[in-house]
Amino acid sequence: MTLAEALRTLLTVPEQVSINETVLEHHSKDVTSYHPGVTPDVVVFPSSTEDVCRVMQYADTHAIPVVPFGIGSSVEGQVVPVRGGISMDFTQMNKVLEVRPEDFLVRVQPGVTRLQLNQHLKEYGLFFPVDPGADATLGGMAATNASGTTAVRYGTMRDNVLGLTVVTADGSVITTGGQAAKSSAGYNLTGLFVGSEGTLGTFTELTLRVYGIPEYTLAARAVFPDVGSASQAAMGMMMCGIALDRVELVDERTVNVVNNFKDTSFTEAPTLFLEFSGNKAAVDNIFLLAQEILTEEGCIELEFDADQAARTRMWTARHDAAFAFSASQPGKKLMTTDVCVPLSALPDAIIEARRAIDDNGLDGAILGHVGDGNYHAVMVVDPENAEDMRRASHVNAEIVRFALERGGTCTGEHGIGLGKAKYLPEEHGAGAVKMMQQIKRVFDPKDILNPGKIFL
Amino acid sequence: MTLAEALRTLLTVPEQVSINETVLEHHSKDVTSYHPGVTPDVVVFPSSTEDVCRVMQYADTHAIPVVPFGIGSSVEGQVVPVRGGISMDFTQMNKVLEVRPEDFLVRVQPGVTRLQLNQHLKEYGLFFPVDPGADATLGGMAATNASGTTAVRYGTMRDNVLGLTVVTADGSVITTGGQAAKSSAGYNLTGLFVGSEGTLGTFTELTLRVYGIPEYTLAARAVFPDVGSASQAAMGMMMCGIALDRVELVDERTVNVVNNFKDTSFTEAPTLFLEFSGNKAAVDNIFLLAQEILTEEGCIELEFDADQAARTRMWTARHDAAFAFSASQPGKKLMTTDVCVPLSALPDAIIEARRAIDDNGLDGAILGHVGDGNYHAVMVVDPENAEDMRRASHVNAEIVRFALERGGTCTGEHGIGLGKAKYLPEEHGAGAVKMMQQIKRVFDPKDILNPGKIFL
Ligand SMILES: Cc1cc2nc3c(=O)[nH]c(=O)nc-3n(C[C@H](O)[C@H](O)[C@H](O)COP(=O)(O)OP(=O)(O)OC[C@H]3O[C@@H](n4cnc5c(N)ncnc54)[C@H](O)[C@@H]3O)c2cc1C
Ligand SMILES: Cc1cc2nc3c(=O)[nH]c(=O)nc-3n(C[C@H](O)[C@H](O)[C@H](O)COP(=O)(O)OP(=O)(O)OC[C@H]3O[C@@H](n4cnc5c(N)ncnc54)[C@H](O)[C@@H]3O)c2cc1C
Repeated sequence: MTLAEALRTLLTVPEQVSINETVLEHHSKDVTSYHPGVTPDVVVFPSSTEDVCRVMQYADTHAIPVVPFGIGSSVEGQVVPVRGGISMDFTQMNKVLEVRPEDFLVRVQPGVTRLQLNQHLKEYGLFFPVDPGADATLGGMAATNASGTTAVRYGTMRDNVLGLTVVTADGSVITTGGQAAKSSAGYNLTGLFVGSEGTLGTFTELTLRVYGIPEYTLAARAVFPDVGSASQAAMGMMMCGIALDRVELVDERTVNVVNNFKDTSFTEAPTLFLEFSGNKAAVDNIFLLAQEILTEEGCIELEFDADQAARTRMWTARHDAAFAFSASQPGKKLMTTDVCVPLSALPDAIIEARRAIDDNGLDGAILGHVGDGNYHAVMVVDPENAEDMRRASHVNAEIVRFALERGGTCTGEHGIGLGKAKYLPEEHGAGAVKMMQQIKRVFDPKDILNPGKIFL
Repeated sequence: MTLAEALRTLLTVPEQVSINETVLEHHSKDVTSYHPGVTPDVVVFPSSTEDVCRVMQYADTHAIPVVPFGIGSSVEGQVVPVRGGISMDFTQMNKVLEVRPEDFLVRVQPGVTRLQLNQHLKEYGLFFPVDPGADATLGGMAATNASGTTAVRYGTMRDNVLGLTVVTADGSVITTGGQAAKSSAGYNLTGLFVGSEGTLGTFTELTLRVYGIPEYTLAARAVFPDVGSASQAAMGMMMCGIALDRVELVDERTVNVVNNFKDTSFTEAPTLFLEFSGNKAAVDNIFLLAQEILTEEGCIELEFDADQAARTRMWTARHDAAFAFSASQPGKKLMTTDVCVPLSALPDAIIEARRAIDDNGLDGAILGHVGDGNYHAVMVVDPENAEDMRRASHVNAEIVRFALERGGTCTGEHGIGLGKAKYLPEEHGAGAVKMMQQIKRVFDPKDILNPGKIFL
């Protein structure tokens, strides 16, 4: 019996197991990154926790690698089945299981996507805030500890996952966390699984914190003469305790590419994209204060609006940045840095990153979740071109080094995957990495859960 | 050589090692709880990470238990050296090492207390928000994942510890986390150590998130005819996304005891204690909305004030509750429940708890961090009286069972220690507890780090 045949005997319908070339190819790599693909031997589509258990038990018995797959929007090669085996696609486990408005929580299957969940929550006046841009799955978002534009207000996935159902490497089921807002009961397994990138267990159910949709949202676009003053303004607002929902920085070159691509005419200078929400009077009040700080820091152009259409238009240059860069050079791939630094180091970090990109003759966007000190240099590369790759990797390394020297992290939200594994010991030290590896061995003694990731 | 003599050879001055009867007695148990004491063989007072390493290396070689000790305000027997050995007191490691206002972070030694830290931060216009009432050490607070009245706004210790220096069981040093606001770099060791109650490693330095002192704070006291309507009002405010800094519930009997003890004349009915902060205009605006909800839910008496003295007076009945109960029956000890339930289960949970206390002929306060669904039944017991203990344990078990049946936790903030160990498997299931124990074995193969805690 082939692997596919064996797996079919374990699942309900034959379509849950595929060796179709297109399907294998689709699961060989992520959607946007430069990481080369490796084809899995087979793709399975579980439809329940029990399905996942049966596949994992089989994989455990035969020591076959299993790589969970959401929509493949991760950018560090996390979904590449580097040792072949089974790619486990969660598309069919996409049900919102329960909404509990009065408890501000929801239970979902891992294949539910962010937009799908928010569509579902709308009628309850609720929303799930973590927003990585892509319409990622909640399972994938939990596995990478994703965050994005709203982390400054609502935190990361780790702050918003209350509990998990996890299928372990040997195919048994455990539950972690619970439905209470907080707990000090034993070791924090939930927080350990979140961000483990499919290497410690497979999530088959998530309990998430949700929030009331704010009554009123005000968006603003503030243009500055340089990134220094833009970052300074963001810091100033944070220092004053101004409750920001989003505060994004996009640099000059990035606005330029968006203008070319979308035929817009945004001022080509560093721009802060802001969002405030809450009770209208309170927001208007807070915005007055914000405006003062923006002006003090030298804002040369300020647009703001509470109207939904205007807000969307205003944020175009932020939302379309990565896409515009990618589309501007068809066929190429993206290498994205993701350092996060203490706030005070951010202006210099961004200036340094721009210099490194330019000095190395590359093209790239710089954009950032400035409220958190997290920013991306998105470089357009041709993975087939060794010189291109050498330069981009060099810039990547320079940016990471700059961050680590200042107490920062090599990845604020994307995770380690393949691309950042070489930086892990530098960031945490050999002792801490050894502890992580010991945890990995306890949870996955046969090294079948997304092997080859996180650790070199 | 005795153990004390051996340890003296490792440390700088002889006073760092004590076998004085009073000192041993002080380190045999916590300050308030019913858990019986066990005398340690020796108490050490490290003054640096290196001191801790040397002691741990010795303890590792000779398989001697080590129990970290902050100020002993924990309430589940966490500091009791049940297998003797070394009690490691962090009083001498009480320096604030660095304040970085522009990065909203601070580095402290573990013996720094909450009030000491806030005193230090004042001149920077900053504060550390986690407030467990007692003037606990930051090391102890991190080890129990403490929270308290402000968690509804600022989260728990886990949300506010960015990084740790940890001395492991074998006496080596690792660092976890960093200085960035967020990270997805590898497994979340920081979040695993926080809440580990001294059983996985000893913290010798903490990097903490700090916040700007709000420009304006408004406190309020709202009296209700019953706990149902009081809880409903708290939920209502949460549903409307009203930013509350604190929202505490105190029940009728508790106000009564405070009145008797402090000679005050607060209305003896369930009372919500509230705090709002931020920009004055915004707070006033938010409070108008809050007032509407309080009135709608049947508030029969509302007092509010922004003046510091008035705020303190108003909160008396909350702050002095546990103390009043304890002082009302001198010589007795406290048994405190600490369940946390989904918000919608809270009113019933509190009514049930009061019934259980009364039915069992005990005296007790009920007070809660209602915004989180976390509340305490503080029962006054005589640990020498078997019948007293039997009844209190029975009430404790009933309260926990009620919470677990509704997806809650047996401990929202106090930790497991000795007192809640029997509930851990019931809460998390055998599979998850087994994983926790495997982690314990990896981090502490000789079982010398606060042995006998968390797991039965
Ligand atoms: C244009 C663009 C913008 C982006 N912006 C952001 C951003 O702002 N912030 C941010 O955080 N990320 C961002 N990302 C990255 C990406 O969206 C996130 O990493 C996301 O969390 C991946 O989710 P996914 O469903 O695509 O998961 P996948 O890419 O399919 O998988 C990611 C990882 O999760 C594991 N996994 C998936 N499902 C499960 C499961 N059920 N159980 C266990 N493990 C599982 C996989 O094995 C893999 O290791 C961006 C990506 C793109 C393309
Ligand atoms: C009146 C009163 C009210 C309280 N209210 C609250 C409340 O609202 N919220 C709340 O969360 N708690 C509350 N508590 C409980 C208590 O204050 C907390 O548990 C606190 O975190 C304990 O800190 P500590 O310094 O006293 O630690 P200790 O009691 O000395 O130690 C607690 C645990 O931490 C470990 N530990 C101490 N230092 C270190 C270190 N450096 N490294 C590793 N482990 C260490 C110890 O081994 C022990 O397991 C209250 C207690 C009292 C008496």
